[in-house]
Amino acid sequence: MGRGGGAAHRDAGGGGGGRGRDAPPRHGTTAPLGPPAVGRFFLAGPPDVHPGVLAAMQRPMIGDRSKAMEQLLAGIEPQLGRLFRTARPVLVGTASATGFMELAVRNGVRGRALSLVNGAFSERFAKLVRACGKECVRLDVPLGCAVEPDMLRDALRRTPVDAVTLVHSETSTGVLPDVQALGAVVREFDDVLLLVDAVTSLAGSPVETERWQLDFVFTGSQQSLALPPGLALGVSSDRMLERARTLPARGLYFGLVRFLDAMTKHQPPNTPALSLFFPLEPQLPPIQPSPGIQTPR
Amino acid sequence: MGRGGGAAHRDAGGGGGGRGRDAPPRHGTTAPLGPPAVGRFFLAGPPDVHPGVLAAMQRPMIGDRSKAMEQLLAGIEPQLGRLFRTARPVLVGTASATGFMELAVRNGVRGRALSLVNGAFSERFAKLVRACGKECVRLDVPLGCAVEPDMLRDALRRTPVDAVTLVHSETSTGVLPDVQALGAVVREFDDVLLLVDAVTSLAGSPVETERWQLDFVFTGSQQSLALPPGLALGVSSDRMLERARTLPARGLYFGLVRFLDAMTKHQPPNTPALSLFFPLEPQLPPIQPSPGIQTPR
Repeated sequence: MGRGGGAAHRDAGGGGGGRGRDAPPRHGTTAPLGPPAVGRFFLAGPPDVHPGVLAAMQRPMIGDRSKAMEQLLAGIEPQLGRLFRTARPVLVGTASATGFMELAVRNGVRGRALSLVNGAFSERFAKLVRACGKECVRLDVPLGCAVEPDMLRDALRRTPVDAVTLVHSETSTGVLPDVQALGAVVREFDDVLLLVDAVTSLAGSPVETERWQLDFVFTGSQQSLALPPGLALGVSSDRMLERARTLPARGLYFGLVRFLDAMTKHQPPNTPALSLFFPLEPQLPPIQPSPGIQTPR
Repeated sequence: MGRGGGAAHRDAGGGGGGRGRDAPPRHGTTAPLGPPAVGRFFLAGPPDVHPGVLAAMQRPMIGDRSKAMEQLLAGIEPQLGRLFRTARPVLVGTASATGFMELAVRNGVRGRALSLVNGAFSERFAKLVRACGKECVRLDVPLGCAVEPDMLRDALRRTPVDAVTLVHSETSTGVLPDVQALGAVVREFDDVLLLVDAVTSLAGSPVETERWQLDFVFTGSQQSLALPPGLALGVSSDRMLERARTLPARGLYFGLVRFLDAMTKHQPPNTPALSLFFPLEPQLPPIQPSPGIQTPR
């Protein structure tokens, strides 16, 4: 089981008033000593974004239900699939990753979830289960540790739940559990879905959506994809989709059935943040061929 | 009662593959005849965005919990207040306006809402009530018409509800009802909240949040604000906030209590779409002084 595997940063709070190069001084704040070059922005919060990516946002608007929009979504589909290691459609939504964490809970948890908690972001996942009016049973381990497969099996035997929430890379400590082994344990139990926050692992560390049989896995644009924040990306299994159909209060904005139906037709389910979609086209190809992602471990 | 009052377009579907000037040809689509100049993008979907606004998105990332972010939110607060005609904080979220429509329902409807339906977007509001697991009683009027205050009073006497949903400018027909008069009727009943979609009215037509006693009113960035899509903006009353505190399944991403608490401190509740926040600074001031917005009718 991996411990302390490094991964990208995220919105864990803290300072981070740093700026990229050529940033104009703003509002009379003291300029930092020697602004970092592109790619050297290692504070908590959004990464430094390459000027080429920022330039791609300059593209004028297109109709959000136009042929051009469909072509954009169709064009990035295979690259997103390679990134998530799946042949299923990758949902791209206008939201922070916490939005897709809520999507996971609203569409994936029927009544009671087991939340594996070992830091700030897995804590948030547990909190979100309760905030959506569902019951949350916690399996806590100390900071710096990860839940072992045997512990998970014991907990699932002890307490019937219909879903497990798990943070792949727990950013607050850097712990990277063995999701493949944990997923195999979940599969020993009937009708239990595995919901995985891969916000700071995906594209920085192997995430095998289909091979590990993850039911919902999601990330945000501002982590290892090195894009500006504002987009959430995720993939659901067929089991998850079937579960969603049975949940009457799943809502509309993060309603999985409607979302997947639209994106299968290469249409956004709501007016998308177009300017954030444009840089996906130039940014995804350089990320795809990375051996670190392509090689199953 | 106003009928047929014009307002901006929104994501009502339809074509709209148009591009602003200097747009590079994309994916082999046929170039439109004579690309429109800025401000002449009258198709359904996002408006043409001024090059200066697009340029503002080029600003390098800042920490989303940094002092710079707080200063940005504090700086735009008075302008947003003038736009919504309120002294209360204006929530700005990373979502399409449909996201804030869901916020309205999840935080504002306890068990049963009356939905005034006269077109595609008021239909969506009614659908959203049901999608969130709440009961929806509809008051339908023909396309091209608006609900009259007397009709609303009769409906509220007949059927006890705890909220009313209403689209100010029903984009699909152009109907602009008298929200002030309808709001006064709602106030005749105890404990009924008025939830108002002002997506294509706000900043294009007078919207008096406080004077009309609207409990939640929201819009999107890509309508009369002429910004790229991706941000939702809204204001809640104290009554709405009190209601939200009592609703256990309101969620986290669109949870009003947490959202308002963060924004009162000029902090975003989640990692925000920074690149879409940057243009608010240059774009809001030119919109503010418009007599059409400042003059109460």
